[in-house]
Amino acid sequence: MKTVGVVLTGCGYLDGAEIHEAVLTLLALDKAKANIVCIAPNIDQMHVINHFTGQQTEERRNVLVESARIARGKIIDIKDAKSEHLDALIFPGGYGAAKNICSYAVKGVDCEVNLDTATLIQEMNKAKKPIGVICIAPAILAKILGGIGIKATITIGNDRTTANDIEKMGAKHKISSVSEVVVDRKNKIVSTPAYMLGPNIASVAKGINKLVKEVLALTKR
Amino acid sequence: MKTVGVVLTGCGYLDGAEIHEAVLTLLALDKAKANIVCIAPNIDQMHVINHFTGQQTEERRNVLVESARIARGKIIDIKDAKSEHLDALIFPGGYGAAKNICSYAVKGVDCEVNLDTATLIQEMNKAKKPIGVICIAPAILAKILGGIGIKATITIGNDRTTANDIEKMGAKHKISSVSEVVVDRKNKIVSTPAYMLGPNIASVAKGINKLVKEVLALTKR
Repeated sequence: MKTVGVVLTGCGYLDGAEIHEAVLTLLALDKAKANIVCIAPNIDQMHVINHFTGQQTEERRNVLVESARIARGKIIDIKDAKSEHLDALIFPGGYGAAKNICSYAVKGVDCEVNLDTATLIQEMNKAKKPIGVICIAPAILAKILGGIGIKATITIGNDRTTANDIEKMGAKHKISSVSEVVVDRKNKIVSTPAYMLGPNIASVAKGINKLVKEVLALTKR
Repeated sequence: MKTVGVVLTGCGYLDGAEIHEAVLTLLALDKAKANIVCIAPNIDQMHVINHFTGQQTEERRNVLVESARIARGKIIDIKDAKSEHLDALIFPGGYGAAKNICSYAVKGVDCEVNLDTATLIQEMNKAKKPIGVICIAPAILAKILGGIGIKATITIGNDRTTANDIEKMGAKHKISSVSEVVVDRKNKIVSTPAYMLGPNIASVAKGINKLVKEVLALTKR
């Protein structure tokens, strides 16, 4: 049985993890009989957004605490997540990936990255363990791996501005449709656009199902 | 194309809608090419629970606003949901179903029910349109339909205490496994235990897929 870490970044696509992408990842992993470890950083969210109005609020919420809603309470602090206990790592998308564990949504290519997240990604990559990145999460990977000279091939769909940023941060971008994945076998990175393209949950599910299958296949090489 | 209302009761199983059940319902409906209308009451949650610690907090959150996280912003106030615009209605579970739209979790068989929710259920039933209820949500239905003399056959799994309460409120309880559904063809009610039994998302998905299929089939009779 393979153990796969799923890194959650809150609960709700405007300020945290994209809920559909996170749940579809858990479903695909459970169907494949993987052992799932949900993981999140114990830090405040950058923003709290009212998802009915789309407006920012004055509230403060914690990423680990909100992520626990998706994980049904079974979740660990990313400080306690060790690469030696994981066979693979998957990052669902949502603005949480670009606001809470890196600041790409506000700082673009000059974004900062949460140190514990960067460390876990670098350790997984060094140990030649696969990483799956969904939606906007490839931006984190471009920043972190690009920063240590690893040019991963990834997709965020077909958005030209984001694709250019991805390349500026040191990765190679490849256009993909929502139901497809881009597999970088050399670096063991799998990506799918999900709600970067959408528009509907069944299409997003097709891409995520393929991503989980490819990530699990890469654990065996 | 059938239009199906999905009633959400917050975002997180301890104080709102069970997130996996809600997303699995949306996925199954989208795969079946149904038109989905997410619906929630514009009221405060009974509780806000920290899902990492399981402890109640001092926060206040609104059911419609939090439900919008699952619905990605596309959601309407239950006051604006009319039975004539819907072919069917589905209630995912979670404590939100037993705390926010009825008070079963704290008052048992003497629970009160949100008036707009009761009205919508009664109107759907009167119009002979199917209703699907997941996890603990059958308790609402037992209370509302039992109150107007309709004895629906439903399941909440195999929990004896809850099953007894369901019968006291005027419904007939039938034991079911997590991957199965109970179909009351006369009253057009479909139920599945989901996380009342769990334990894993793939099993819950099997039951919810069957529930959505049966609900859609009942729209054609």
